[in-house]
Amino acid sequence: MSRVASSESILRRPVTRVTGRSRETRDDALAVERALEIRIDGRALAVTLRTPGHDRELALGFMAGEGLLRGTADVVAVHEAPADCIDAPDVLDVKLAAGAVVDWTKLERHFTATAACGLCGRAHLDALRAGLVPVAPGPPIDVEALLALPARVRGEQATFEATGGLHAAVWCDGQLEPHVLREDVGRHNAVDKVCGWLLEQGRRPVGEGLLWVSGRAGAELVLKAARAGIPAMAAVGAPSSLAVELAEAAAMTLVGFLREGRMNVYAGEGRLGGQ
Amino acid sequence: MSRVASSESILRRPVTRVTGRSRETRDDALAVERALEIRIDGRALAVTLRTPGHDRELALGFMAGEGLLRGTADVVAVHEAPADCIDAPDVLDVKLAAGAVVDWTKLERHFTATAACGLCGRAHLDALRAGLVPVAPGPPIDVEALLALPARVRGEQATFEATGGLHAAVWCDGQLEPHVLREDVGRHNAVDKVCGWLLEQGRRPVGEGLLWVSGRAGAELVLKAARAGIPAMAAVGAPSSLAVELAEAAAMTLVGFLREGRMNVYAGEGRLGGQ
Repeated sequence: MSRVASSESILRRPVTRVTGRSRETRDDALAVERALEIRIDGRALAVTLRTPGHDRELALGFMAGEGLLRGTADVVAVHEAPADCIDAPDVLDVKLAAGAVVDWTKLERHFTATAACGLCGRAHLDALRAGLVPVAPGPPIDVEALLALPARVRGEQATFEATGGLHAAVWCDGQLEPHVLREDVGRHNAVDKVCGWLLEQGRRPVGEGLLWVSGRAGAELVLKAARAGIPAMAAVGAPSSLAVELAEAAAMTLVGFLREGRMNVYAGEGRLGGQ
Repeated sequence: MSRVASSESILRRPVTRVTGRSRETRDDALAVERALEIRIDGRALAVTLRTPGHDRELALGFMAGEGLLRGTADVVAVHEAPADCIDAPDVLDVKLAAGAVVDWTKLERHFTATAACGLCGRAHLDALRAGLVPVAPGPPIDVEALLALPARVRGEQATFEATGGLHAAVWCDGQLEPHVLREDVGRHNAVDKVCGWLLEQGRRPVGEGLLWVSGRAGAELVLKAARAGIPAMAAVGAPSSLAVELAEAAAMTLVGFLREGRMNVYAGEGRLGGQ
């Protein structure tokens, strides 16, 4: 399985640990959060606060999710650009193939009236919802294998184990074999990195398997999975009402509170077989 | 304490609960996630995916955090506007006082190159960082009271208890007495609602006490607390590297992994007294 193995995602620094009346200073591992600017042919598209590592996948996965890429054939090169100044974000520049055209006027409408952090552009939401075509049914997902997935995934969350501060996303194939795990301080970023990996593997639309996420299942994560053509999503935490509504619209299976041996099925139960 | 007591934040629907080999269908409570468009004098500012309830606080807290409001004197009225169509977001229109002027050209630069959901505009980040003035020291925070806070807060998270799907934010005064608790599917929204409540109480800059958050401490949450003048923040989860860096720049106290009887102090330990 492809997974995080990057030391740049962890920063060690002293921390004061307080337990009852005792205090001790010791080294602690922090999840790194740094700004990354994504450019297309030199022009700024977006800036994200992300955990460094797998930046190329993050950029390509994000662009594909926004409908800006059909596949890797649209991309000539992805390279790091020098930052403008010492405090500036890291920069990744995506050079598009001649045939791949980005409609910036559409993008500007898309991002206008969009506020940062936790706030989504209405145009964005509408566009995503409009682009929601039902995913292919794919092979049935075995319930027993799904209930056993948490134990398999836990051992792989390397940076989470070290810092306690990262979200993770995993894509498993139709037999629930995990193929890629990505971690990030932002859960949208972790999912974008997985989607970027799938794109680079030539697996888009995906058409089978399941996206596992470490936290809750919000509407935006369901939309990203649906647009990648992943027929099922399972979250450790709770789904929101809109996440369930969108999963139903996309004919996706949505599972929440997936723990060893138990889970709640909120949509698309028909895809779950076995037992 | 002011807290959530809204039935519109919970949606009941049937869910299939799978435990080992048994399946049963039962009613489950979902945290509601719905789009809200915030307008200033009829013009769209932003759309957020939020949990309905305390929308006025959300709008005012968000605007204050963006530097668009100095206080409630800048606001003449906040009213719900009719939605454009059935599937459109809820709309809240903020009518500004004559003296309060919003520089839309600055806002447009601010939001340009900003992508949705998990992605932050660079201009936004720079602007927030630039506006980071050290918070006032405020009274010392008693360590024993802080270590006892988790038990006090837990009983108050009404919707979380019902759905498992919400983030919460609480503001406590200098004696760590909780005054306001807000819950939302988006943690930035929960913090914006608390900041909006503080604004409406005439408590901005706040100058004392602590912001408690149910999840991790990301950079954006530290920035929102710093801009509101709250001298300390405590998170149940881990802080990121950038959160610690920004807390230090704002002379804030930052505590992570706050659980009964233990915590990690990442910045501003000098403000913690007692014991």
